[in-house]
Amino acid sequence: MPSTIGVFDSGFGGLTVLRALLHRLPKARFAFLGDTARLPYGSKSRRTIARYAAQSARFLVREQGAEFLVIACNTASALALDAIQDAVPSVPVLGVIEPGAAAAHAASKTRDVLVVATDATVQSHAYTTACLAQGLRAFEMACPLLVPLVEEGWTNHAVTAEVIRIYLDELLATARSGGFTPDTLVLGCTHYPLLRPMIEQIMASIAPAAMQVIDSAESTAEAAARRFDGGAMGAGTGADARAQVRCFATDSVDKFERLGSRFLGQPVGPVELVDLGG
Amino acid sequence: MPSTIGVFDSGFGGLTVLRALLHRLPKARFAFLGDTARLPYGSKSRRTIARYAAQSARFLVREQGAEFLVIACNTASALALDAIQDAVPSVPVLGVIEPGAAAAHAASKTRDVLVVATDATVQSHAYTTACLAQGLRAFEMACPLLVPLVEEGWTNHAVTAEVIRIYLDELLATARSGGFTPDTLVLGCTHYPLLRPMIEQIMASIAPAAMQVIDSAESTAEAAARRFDGGAMGAGTGADARAQVRCFATDSVDKFERLGSRFLGQPVGPVELVDLGG
Repeated sequence: MPSTIGVFDSGFGGLTVLRALLHRLPKARFAFLGDTARLPYGSKSRRTIARYAAQSARFLVREQGAEFLVIACNTASALALDAIQDAVPSVPVLGVIEPGAAAAHAASKTRDVLVVATDATVQSHAYTTACLAQGLRAFEMACPLLVPLVEEGWTNHAVTAEVIRIYLDELLATARSGGFTPDTLVLGCTHYPLLRPMIEQIMASIAPAAMQVIDSAESTAEAAARRFDGGAMGAGTGADARAQVRCFATDSVDKFERLGSRFLGQPVGPVELVDLGG
Repeated sequence: MPSTIGVFDSGFGGLTVLRALLHRLPKARFAFLGDTARLPYGSKSRRTIARYAAQSARFLVREQGAEFLVIACNTASALALDAIQDAVPSVPVLGVIEPGAAAAHAASKTRDVLVVATDATVQSHAYTTACLAQGLRAFEMACPLLVPLVEEGWTNHAVTAEVIRIYLDELLATARSGGFTPDTLVLGCTHYPLLRPMIEQIMASIAPAAMQVIDSAESTAEAAARRFDGGAMGAGTGADARAQVRCFATDSVDKFERLGSRFLGQPVGPVELVDLGG
């Protein structure tokens, strides 16, 4: 029986990371938990996020037997990676920040990168710290309207294009006035991959030079896959083995099932309700 | 010493109700609790909302000595009023739905009203039920982007106007195709009063006939004030008594203090952090 990779998010945005993982580890077994009763983490404090994320990690390890954890949530990765690792000391934990920063390092020539994310991720300056460790300067900006726009289904809507244009205009202008010459933009929120085509198109129309767009979800899946390439998780139980995915949520599964398939790129199947207390 | 009125919301949107209460009961003592660690309630299930709201109500009654509770949250009023009343059986509990429906009854001549609210409030059909009890037909629609737009501070922004126009266009068209002839619009979310001027202006430009806009926050404050008019809570401790307001939040008080004054219409003062567990 293959080992289980636990994938955790505050909601179902992390399904974009699971989607990328499924693409790279097509024979692995996954348990995905969305802490939907307490989302969004993006507007909450470090203390609260750490408590919620630790409970969620323990569920995946103790109840679902996960032997590897992917924290498919930028906010939890930014604010609670240590708390999660402390909660499940026997299991390796991979967040989305470090892989995103590493991919930015590989992409950037100017060594200046832009990061768009939620309020809490930006306030944590986790991307700035991770980029600095790679020899990069990062300029971060919160874009609080993008998650609700994606959840409203307006991923191809004129209003969303206008909001993105306003955010990117401000981002470029503020970064440049601070002396940055960015050539790379990191999407530091798991909802943003659904807006990637629009973000790339608008950025191309307003940026003075080419801008590489990095998707932390993709980068994280690549980092996880490198870890398991050829190993038990990638290989599964046999040549015909297919990925197994079980999805759990802490609140009403309706919205998860309804919206989740957009993020996963395939039906999410039945979502099981779990009670973590609180 | 005057009695305390407890005011509860999932976040700080309910400060618009407190603002209306302060206007009508200028000598009362208020304890406001925003369950900011677990907001927004609008996208959560009845079961989860009931549990959170009951914990919050017990805090206001047991820890703060509230002798009257105003549930300044449409979602909690819609989904958890019974659970709250069960949690604090000795204290009268007033939600925002009934007063909103009563005000719509007083305003409407056609007996058809429109309601805009969060997803969870709309899905509960609490306004439809409350309006029906008043002899009114209600047509409800969720407007999930309005809360994030208010919280982004875009209360006077072209994007917000465009989003409101899209929502109101769809609301009017769908209601009319269902045979409704509405003359009244109920703002069924405590964030929406901050958009009231824009909503009234856009509605006037697209509705075929005059449309009265009802603000549940105002209607609820009026209902509470009628209850205490001339009584201990309205009168305070003496002729010179002024309202006393203590604000509590379950998560980081920074955002509450930063954004709360917009909702309250005056500085919220220091916000005290409380832990309800979870």
